[in-house]
Amino acid sequence: MKLLIRFFTLVIMLSACVVQAAVDPLPSWNPGPAKDAVLQFVRDVKTPGQPKFVRAEDRIAVFDNDGTLWSERPAYFQLFFALDRVKALAPNHPEWKTKQPFKAALEGDLKTVFSGGEHALIELVMASHAGNTTEEFEQIVIEWIGTAKHPRFKRPYTDCVFQPMLELLSYLRANGFKTWIVSGGGIEFMRPWVEKVYGIPPEQVIGSSIKTRFEIRDGKPVLVRLPEIDFIDDKGEKPVGIHKFIGRRPIAAFGNSDGDLQMLQWTAAGSGSHFCLYVHHTDAEREWAYDRKSSIGRLDKGLDEAKAKGWTVVDMKNDWKVIYPFEKM
Amino acid sequence: MKLLIRFFTLVIMLSACVVQAAVDPLPSWNPGPAKDAVLQFVRDVKTPGQPKFVRAEDRIAVFDNDGTLWSERPAYFQLFFALDRVKALAPNHPEWKTKQPFKAALEGDLKTVFSGGEHALIELVMASHAGNTTEEFEQIVIEWIGTAKHPRFKRPYTDCVFQPMLELLSYLRANGFKTWIVSGGGIEFMRPWVEKVYGIPPEQVIGSSIKTRFEIRDGKPVLVRLPEIDFIDDKGEKPVGIHKFIGRRPIAAFGNSDGDLQMLQWTAAGSGSHFCLYVHHTDAEREWAYDRKSSIGRLDKGLDEAKAKGWTVVDMKNDWKVIYPFEKM
Repeated sequence: MKLLIRFFTLVIMLSACVVQAAVDPLPSWNPGPAKDAVLQFVRDVKTPGQPKFVRAEDRIAVFDNDGTLWSERPAYFQLFFALDRVKALAPNHPEWKTKQPFKAALEGDLKTVFSGGEHALIELVMASHAGNTTEEFEQIVIEWIGTAKHPRFKRPYTDCVFQPMLELLSYLRANGFKTWIVSGGGIEFMRPWVEKVYGIPPEQVIGSSIKTRFEIRDGKPVLVRLPEIDFIDDKGEKPVGIHKFIGRRPIAAFGNSDGDLQMLQWTAAGSGSHFCLYVHHTDAEREWAYDRKSSIGRLDKGLDEAKAKGWTVVDMKNDWKVIYPFEKM
Repeated sequence: MKLLIRFFTLVIMLSACVVQAAVDPLPSWNPGPAKDAVLQFVRDVKTPGQPKFVRAEDRIAVFDNDGTLWSERPAYFQLFFALDRVKALAPNHPEWKTKQPFKAALEGDLKTVFSGGEHALIELVMASHAGNTTEEFEQIVIEWIGTAKHPRFKRPYTDCVFQPMLELLSYLRANGFKTWIVSGGGIEFMRPWVEKVYGIPPEQVIGSSIKTRFEIRDGKPVLVRLPEIDFIDDKGEKPVGIHKFIGRRPIAAFGNSDGDLQMLQWTAAGSGSHFCLYVHHTDAEREWAYDRKSSIGRLDKGLDEAKAKGWTVVDMKNDWKVIYPFEKM
């Protein structure tokens, strides 16, 4: 009888092992060092008593958005939003027909828009993002994100997110992490849809912003969006934004460009366990391939520092079985 | 037998009711309309299917700090921190012995400090709050809050918090609320201790701030605190800060002064259920009594608007059985 009990116990234990092994939390990641590193880090920090254990409240993970959670080609998706806004507002601005960068924007001439440099882009953003209330702007974003299509994939932009990163976000949260976005993109451009798409609530989004002003209009309080930069959440401002909004140092940081380098450095400088990962765009076929000389999402210094510091670098072509969720359908 | 089962079922149900009634979530609140209003609001928003139900993720409650969660007399507690910092730094600044507002600060002459107006206060804050890294500043705050004593009560400042508000914070969290601080006080002055004292994590604190700059010092990334105002979280800037940090409209707001009025207005303008409460300082004996003409924490317009809009006003003297936790000891 005792032997029989032992036998059944063994059978049950083995089945449990099989079940556990069968549930891969990162099924869209190919086996390899990148996947191993992620799994090892999470095991280390979640196991009480282990030297690398981290309290749940300190398990803060920060993610860049453009190029890290979703694609950023042929241009930052928010730029397409800005162009569509300029088109929608054009009837009230006859002068835009002849005035750059608006003329180029209306003609969909990205090359000329970019040739105007940062100044032209800021002009476009201010004209397309300011002047309304925060509630009005939220509605505009919701409508656009629900209808606009990516020029290459002819699908909503929110379909062009990285399936392996969606799995990573869920896996981290299932292990007690709070997941945050820290993006150069507009905070109010992201908040209306990131909860549904990434499972990240609006209060865990840090991004670039323009100023707002409190006003009472017809007895109703509103926040009016002003044509004035408040915060550009890029490079050294990423740690500044992290410190301002979170007030704790992250233990894990995920980026894809030199604009994320300082965020990774700040994370790596913590006293306890930490994990830094770069997404390297190496898949010209399924997505895009670019790094050291790119004008969008340049990864140059970051690639060197990742090598020097032993950070994890995802080779998208080889490490990711699937890029987009729609490939699985 | 069936009857017996019914009888015992009834006994068990009745006992459950008695136990439930016996556990008052707000034991330091006297019975009355303020307590009733709080309890009714929470019952309304947490009960699925009720017309006033609110999803848990939208149950955002915002609290002013000075005068709402802890006392603000004889001056904002952070001012005592600034004065102590000026004293500590004085050996490196011989010129302060003759230069205002530093001379007055060193002599503990609050009246002269205040007579210099906002400009003098900003000078004091910059001299005492800037110039170090965020990590250094955090350590300074931790040390001060652990040793400094309130001039009247001869106890740590963190003992001078309102017991009824501690109960309210816990009660709201137990019912699915996320509790946030939205204070004119310094965000980095509050974050090091609010988790322990109020159960509010650093990432749920909004406050005034000075700018910081990312730097690599001896190969180590640091954030340096600059003598430059970043954000003053008061009056119309409170809704601005709420929108920037939280990105959702709160459904409950708690304040004590006209500086909180816009935050309450913003909360009250939401489309669903909402709750606004003012703490009215009416207890000259146990705490302080002040409102319409006070220089600190003036409650004038807010008192009128609360009456007009039917917001809840706590009469500290009559509504609160206990003011401070140490009274219970």
